[in-house]
Amino acid sequence: MTPPAETAATAYTGHVDYVHGYSAHETRRLGDQADTLAELLHADTAYPAGSRVLEAGCGVGAQTVHLIGASPGAHFTAVDISATSLARARARVTAEFPAARVTWHQADLFELPFKDAEFDHVFVCFVLEHLVAPGEALMALRRVLRPGGTLTVIEGDHGSAFFHPDSAYAHAAIDCQVRLQHTAGGNALVGRQLHPLLSAAGYERIAVRPRPVYADRSHPALVDGFTRNTFIAMIESVREDAQSAGLMSPADWDRGLADLHRTADDDGTFHYTFFKAVAVNPRPS
Amino acid sequence: MTPPAETAATAYTGHVDYVHGYSAHETRRLGDQADTLAELLHADTAYPAGSRVLEAGCGVGAQTVHLIGASPGAHFTAVDISATSLARARARVTAEFPAARVTWHQADLFELPFKDAEFDHVFVCFVLEHLVAPGEALMALRRVLRPGGTLTVIEGDHGSAFFHPDSAYAHAAIDCQVRLQHTAGGNALVGRQLHPLLSAAGYERIAVRPRPVYADRSHPALVDGFTRNTFIAMIESVREDAQSAGLMSPADWDRGLADLHRTADDDGTFHYTFFKAVAVNPRPS
Repeated sequence: MTPPAETAATAYTGHVDYVHGYSAHETRRLGDQADTLAELLHADTAYPAGSRVLEAGCGVGAQTVHLIGASPGAHFTAVDISATSLARARARVTAEFPAARVTWHQADLFELPFKDAEFDHVFVCFVLEHLVAPGEALMALRRVLRPGGTLTVIEGDHGSAFFHPDSAYAHAAIDCQVRLQHTAGGNALVGRQLHPLLSAAGYERIAVRPRPVYADRSHPALVDGFTRNTFIAMIESVREDAQSAGLMSPADWDRGLADLHRTADDDGTFHYTFFKAVAVNPRPS
Repeated sequence: MTPPAETAATAYTGHVDYVHGYSAHETRRLGDQADTLAELLHADTAYPAGSRVLEAGCGVGAQTVHLIGASPGAHFTAVDISATSLARARARVTAEFPAARVTWHQADLFELPFKDAEFDHVFVCFVLEHLVAPGEALMALRRVLRPGGTLTVIEGDHGSAFFHPDSAYAHAAIDCQVRLQHTAGGNALVGRQLHPLLSAAGYERIAVRPRPVYADRSHPALVDGFTRNTFIAMIESVREDAQSAGLMSPADWDRGLADLHRTADDDGTFHYTFFKAVAVNPRPS
């Protein structure tokens, strides 16, 4: 669920080590995930021609291409803290949309190199979950958003996962990921908190909507693209860290993962909830 | 989530004691719940004029009035195992829709007094969760459904509940309800199982869709009508049974309920998922 935001935790306030690591495999996983989920998450996001849009934390560009595809006339500014991710995002966007108007900046969310109110809209997806101080990030983004402009936030929530057959071992394996992300300073349960976070950060007209992903055998592409290759792959990616931290015995872990795979069988089902919020930066009263 | 289906468990195969009991308060709670959720659950269900529709397990008529309101020209047959519930349903429907064409039958789902293929459509809502043998019930319903006719099923899933602030005590209190319902022979997690149950019962063209309920301070009617007066009220209603069964200490229970109420505060959020399935009785090949 979690696009890269490569960092040394010590160098940037409020930022944390990316829990999933960096690799070509990881980049591919994030690309698959974005394509499977693009319709669900992005279909209702489109910005007017000429509007100035900031994507904060663009990672490898997995969401950026969908943003640009839906809003060909908008002027995008894409920011990420990782030069490596930014280069990948730029290569991908340039390949898919050679004519797109995108400006690229390597920068910290908390020290954005932009003037106050420089953007009409801000978009942030799978970023807050990695931050120690998501509320402060939302305030930093509000500074560069013009009054009356919108912020769009998309986040997952790993506590929303449930499935058939149910399994305490599978839930425990998911909980390892949640605990590792917490230890790293992030929050894998941030989806459910978007409304209070946005409210505390001073936004108004906050509309949060759940975006459920439900996969059964009648949706084989979703079983493969989401249950197996996105969600289970993400849990599998923390196996070593979970073992090193002593969070779960190898035998219990293996059973948990086997039980997760079981939910992708023909008589299994899998359910997960993303949250999408749109909020407005208030005009001065 | 659970409309009454009054019964003596010994008298009817596959049927169980209604976990929430019977009272005027309970009837009111179920009415409130149905009104709050009617749009979410029923908006896309309408039957053609003249079609013969069976509602199996109508309870006190909480869903019946919405069915009839959306399909004024259909011929309804409403069945419940409880004479008391049936009388309440009949009174309610007669008061709201004096001209509605409804036939009322007190009967067991597993011994329906109807010919094979007597109905064009069957509707069942918040019933499977109370049955020891939901799969057999779906087969019994398929017998009275004409080939090519549709079955619509709506069920909740208490394992889908998550909220902010998160609380292990609140989850444990919810789990008491799940365990009591399991002990009574029911299944509070049946929503996630609709696809495999329908498939095993011989239905085809099965389409299961999650219907999430998400409440935050921007939806005060939902916070009140769903989080407080439906979900938390339902959990509170099993307090005595949970204590008698020794499932949770009184202090832990009270903390769990306080934590649940906390999610209905201004900075709380609450999320729950219903499932709605539509499936077809195959034509002989």
